[in-house]
Amino acid sequence: MSDLEIRLLDEILRIQAIDCHSHVPAGAPHAQTLGDLLGYHYYTELLHSAGMPAEAVDPRKSEIERIGEMVGRLDTISNTVQYGWLMEVARELFGFSGDRLTPANSNELAQGIIEAGRQKDRYRAVLAKARIEKVFLTNRFDEDLSAVDRSVFVPCLRTDDLVFQIADPQVRRRLASKTGTEVGSPEEARAAVRWLMRYFVQHGAASAAISLPPDFSPHAPDEKAAGKALARAAAGKDLGAGDSAALAVFMFDLVADTCRQVHKPMQLMIGVIRDMYPAGVPGGRDLLSKRGSLADYADLFRRYPEVDFAVSVLSATWAHELASFAWIFPNVKPSGHWWYSNVPAHIEPDLRARLEAVPRVKLIGYYSDMYKVEFGLPKFNMYRRILARVLAREFVEPGRMTERQAIETAGLLLRDNAKRIFGV
Amino acid sequence: MSDLEIRLLDEILRIQAIDCHSHVPAGAPHAQTLGDLLGYHYYTELLHSAGMPAEAVDPRKSEIERIGEMVGRLDTISNTVQYGWLMEVARELFGFSGDRLTPANSNELAQGIIEAGRQKDRYRAVLAKARIEKVFLTNRFDEDLSAVDRSVFVPCLRTDDLVFQIADPQVRRRLASKTGTEVGSPEEARAAVRWLMRYFVQHGAASAAISLPPDFSPHAPDEKAAGKALARAAAGKDLGAGDSAALAVFMFDLVADTCRQVHKPMQLMIGVIRDMYPAGVPGGRDLLSKRGSLADYADLFRRYPEVDFAVSVLSATWAHELASFAWIFPNVKPSGHWWYSNVPAHIEPDLRARLEAVPRVKLIGYYSDMYKVEFGLPKFNMYRRILARVLAREFVEPGRMTERQAIETAGLLLRDNAKRIFGV
Amino acid sequence: MSDLEIRLLDEILRIQAIDCHSHVPAGAPHAQTLGDLLGYHYYTELLHSAGMPAEAVDPRKSEIERIGEMVGRLDTISNTVQYGWLMEVARELFGFSGDRLTPANSNELAQGIIEAGRQKDRYRAVLAKARIEKVFLTNRFDEDLSAVDRSVFVPCLRTDDLVFQIADPQVRRRLASKTGTEVGSPEEARAAVRWLMRYFVQHGAASAAISLPPDFSPHAPDEKAAGKALARAAAGKDLGAGDSAALAVFMFDLVADTCRQVHKPMQLMIGVIRDMYPAGVPGGRDLLSKRGSLADYADLFRRYPEVDFAVSVLSATWAHELASFAWIFPNVKPSGHWWYSNVPAHIEPDLRARLEAVPRVKLIGYYSDMYKVEFGLPKFNMYRRILARVLAREFVEPGRMTERQAIETAGLLLRDNAKRIFGV
Repeated sequence: MSDLEIRLLDEILRIQAIDCHSHVPAGAPHAQTLGDLLGYHYYTELLHSAGMPAEAVDPRKSEIERIGEMVGRLDTISNTVQYGWLMEVARELFGFSGDRLTPANSNELAQGIIEAGRQKDRYRAVLAKARIEKVFLTNRFDEDLSAVDRSVFVPCLRTDDLVFQIADPQVRRRLASKTGTEVGSPEEARAAVRWLMRYFVQHGAASAAISLPPDFSPHAPDEKAAGKALARAAAGKDLGAGDSAALAVFMFDLVADTCRQVHKPMQLMIGVIRDMYPAGVPGGRDLLSKRGSLADYADLFRRYPEVDFAVSVLSATWAHELASFAWIFPNVKPSGHWWYSNVPAHIEPDLRARLEAVPRVKLIGYYSDMYKVEFGLPKFNMYRRILARVLAREFVEPGRMTERQAIETAGLLLRDNAKRIFGV
Repeated sequence: MSDLEIRLLDEILRIQAIDCHSHVPAGAPHAQTLGDLLGYHYYTELLHSAGMPAEAVDPRKSEIERIGEMVGRLDTISNTVQYGWLMEVARELFGFSGDRLTPANSNELAQGIIEAGRQKDRYRAVLAKARIEKVFLTNRFDEDLSAVDRSVFVPCLRTDDLVFQIADPQVRRRLASKTGTEVGSPEEARAAVRWLMRYFVQHGAASAAISLPPDFSPHAPDEKAAGKALARAAAGKDLGAGDSAALAVFMFDLVADTCRQVHKPMQLMIGVIRDMYPAGVPGGRDLLSKRGSLADYADLFRRYPEVDFAVSVLSATWAHELASFAWIFPNVKPSGHWWYSNVPAHIEPDLRARLEAVPRVKLIGYYSDMYKVEFGLPKFNMYRRILARVLAREFVEPGRMTERQAIETAGLLLRDNAKRIFGV
Repeated sequence: MSDLEIRLLDEILRIQAIDCHSHVPAGAPHAQTLGDLLGYHYYTELLHSAGMPAEAVDPRKSEIERIGEMVGRLDTISNTVQYGWLMEVARELFGFSGDRLTPANSNELAQGIIEAGRQKDRYRAVLAKARIEKVFLTNRFDEDLSAVDRSVFVPCLRTDDLVFQIADPQVRRRLASKTGTEVGSPEEARAAVRWLMRYFVQHGAASAAISLPPDFSPHAPDEKAAGKALARAAAGKDLGAGDSAALAVFMFDLVADTCRQVHKPMQLMIGVIRDMYPAGVPGGRDLLSKRGSLADYADLFRRYPEVDFAVSVLSATWAHELASFAWIFPNVKPSGHWWYSNVPAHIEPDLRARLEAVPRVKLIGYYSDMYKVEFGLPKFNMYRRILARVLAREFVEPGRMTERQAIETAGLLLRDNAKRIFGV
């Protein structure tokens, strides 16, 4: 690292970040056992991919057995950036001093986690150390938000179920129980979704979020077809593929329109194919396809100019489209680096491309997507290091920015843009 | 920058470049007001994308109002490479000394531009300073070419209208008025296009050019279907989608065949979707899709082995296909880095890939695509810097080229190949 | 190069590599004339692409004429990495001392090759110098394997013909002659393929291999449809497109299933379009399309969990899918960098991405794809240099690996993983 890069990184590490997307559970935000860390799907799926049988981490096994199976195999994935996150968590947050995590020293770490986990509001100390000021949650629509610690957490309405599973009897029951509305018509769907969004906003929610398959194509809904599908669902009948598709398009549009009404952004996470590998470990069965195009979303972006769309794409091949669409559409905000694209090899070129061609006030730099607050530290640090590198090498060294401008730009990406766009 | 890179750049900056694609208007090639610079679509569209209402740059507003709206917001796009171009133009060509362009200092620049703009043949001084020897224009088919200053400008027949709008009554009228042929049959179309191309060649034109949507697929035309469509158009009737498609394929093929006849290259600019964001600012409404494949052009490349196709692709995802097709097809010449791919983050890897796998005598390194000659300087300088970096880091340092060979290769990319391929 | 990179490279150059894919002919593995080197399709196709008529290398011309045509034009491709391979072969293996290969000095090299080529078992000395321990061949199904020097070569059953040409009378004759089975039914196909695989395994074969077009989609075969197609083929009747497709899917599945039975990996080389440029030089007519997706192979990966699939992709746009699928599917092993992706500009980012996100025990780093053993040296050296660079810059310098761990990881990629996965 050059001196310049070190200076920039030093400043970037001080910025109090806004983490606009995570899966942290409000009721158990920090790790209380080593299993809470190793249970992160990255470790179970990578170890399984490297040869560990899925049964080795069967939830019916004791945590100690599962940890034993995993720790003995960590060397197979010791090259990965995800393994790097684990070691950084262990060292920075639990005082672990080993070079690698092995069966010989894992107990030491396990004890450290148990002890630290007992500290009151431990998650606040963890986030403070990670210099993360706010963490967005991704809440089920019928989650009770009253217990959320709003000094650090920001609720966010996850709408996957509403859009893609609204015909499922269980989802319908949960929705009726939460909103009091039995949804059998577009009007009732509208009432229910609006009720939910108002409830969420009242409890501090800053956005709605949804993950989408690569072939989803939002367009103006056919309300009549959606009505027919909802009526069938209400009558307990199965939906054909055409019905389901029309219903998903309608529900998606309803979510976007509701965001418009309440002046909240919508987080689009585009490109996941669920359950592509059903024999995998839990959380490690979804993959992607590079097919599809952001061009399919142009109609949505045109129809809702008042809604900010914070867009993440899963396939690296979509990155150029995302930067290009954000360059033209005022309401498209590139957001972070998602999942299979959340590795430095992809973050670095994508970040450079966004910084070179998208207005800096539009870039939501990073979010953690984490399930326990501990991972916010290494993930954001990874991003902060890449940001320092790109700003140093491509902007300050060639004279395109001063150091001050670079740090100011980093502040926009890590904090200010998210605060402004999400209104937090 | 290493000493090597500095030495290479120094030599590369001396090369008199050929700019084989621009939109410079022959009658007003250089800027006469600050509005001529800020009116470049990059600035209006990026500022609009960053939050400026499109109305702020409504042409019905006075230039001073529009400049005011823009300058006050430039900070929102100060990270972009396009903003960098503007500052380099201001500093290098107008003696501007500010760190950033702001409401406080923009008047100084505005005055400088007005003064410089009054100099006789100012554009020649600008191009000399940018070390650009020749600039290709992109002329409407009915443009009067007699006034073109052929000491620096090279006409080029833009064929978008002919291929995609030949059924449009206004285009037909313009064509009839220029060529004397009312086109109602394939034969008449042939006569008109050949007349145009001869006219262009007589006035120094070096190629035909066309921009194409990502799903266009050229193939051997169905002349009968095209004839039916032309007859309908001549009769003032609307064309169905099938008619339009057949007609476009026919007209495209006619242009390629005419290039063959006159021994001129055809510039293919592949991948733009027009008017994807109609509410945008003028010039800032087109976008792209990553769909499609250069494989759809293989038939064209096979059928016209005598025609050199200077190919540009808009989507970064097409870059590998372009380099691979140029590696195999003698008549495919990768040309520059177009529009949404014309940012260093994409130029650098694409240039490296082309230099590593495509014969160096085939690479048309760069063109400006500019609307005013001033932008040739920062755009070509951006490319020259990347070229020096790639040659230094990937070729000279690892011992794959000597410095002399690297500079010679740069000469091919910036000048010699374009001269040979386009015959200028 | 930093000191660290030099130290890593020094160690990496000592690793005895396994080359798991080549086209070396067992009976003539090393070059005996300069024509054996210059005849590599890279040189003929690149020179043709740069302007040399295909006739210049017509096989009916004498070798000396062909060499003359080529050497005089080498300067046009002197920038390419392939030219770099040639020079490294000349210098390292034949003591050539020129800066460039020219008509003035090519005779010196030609003589050196003839002399060296006469040495007994020259190929072993060449491979020893290249630090390549084993080289996989790609054998026609009816090749006689008894003469293969199994101290360095490992046979591999090429199945392209079986899968895509099984209806071809000549292929059928060759198959009947080799296996004794006239294939007219699925059962007979099964018998023949299993016979072949057993024969190959008995002769030391380590895998089956196939190259596939980008739109191939393997799925559970329709045995009835395949039976109909085989019966037609046996009766000498032509197959329709539907028949051919069903038959290819069946035969492909049969190969996969046979790999399962004999516990051998299957090498999938995905993405080539054959004969896209028929007027090209021999070996220089195939290209690619970026269309398609590895998602189409998920069904195969699910159905054969016991089979290791060593997967190569031809289009750079598939690289992210490959790394992501290998991250999740235990039986997907990313293998090398194939053909149009085998240039440093693509290897470097792809290698970095694989090293950051795929368990290191799964990565088959590199194979040569060579036709003469000489090219193993520069190709593997190219890869070793990139590996040293990526490990130094992205792993050791940022503290993610120690030097020892980096070298150990290099050993997995170059040698240990291939040994374990292929059982050699």
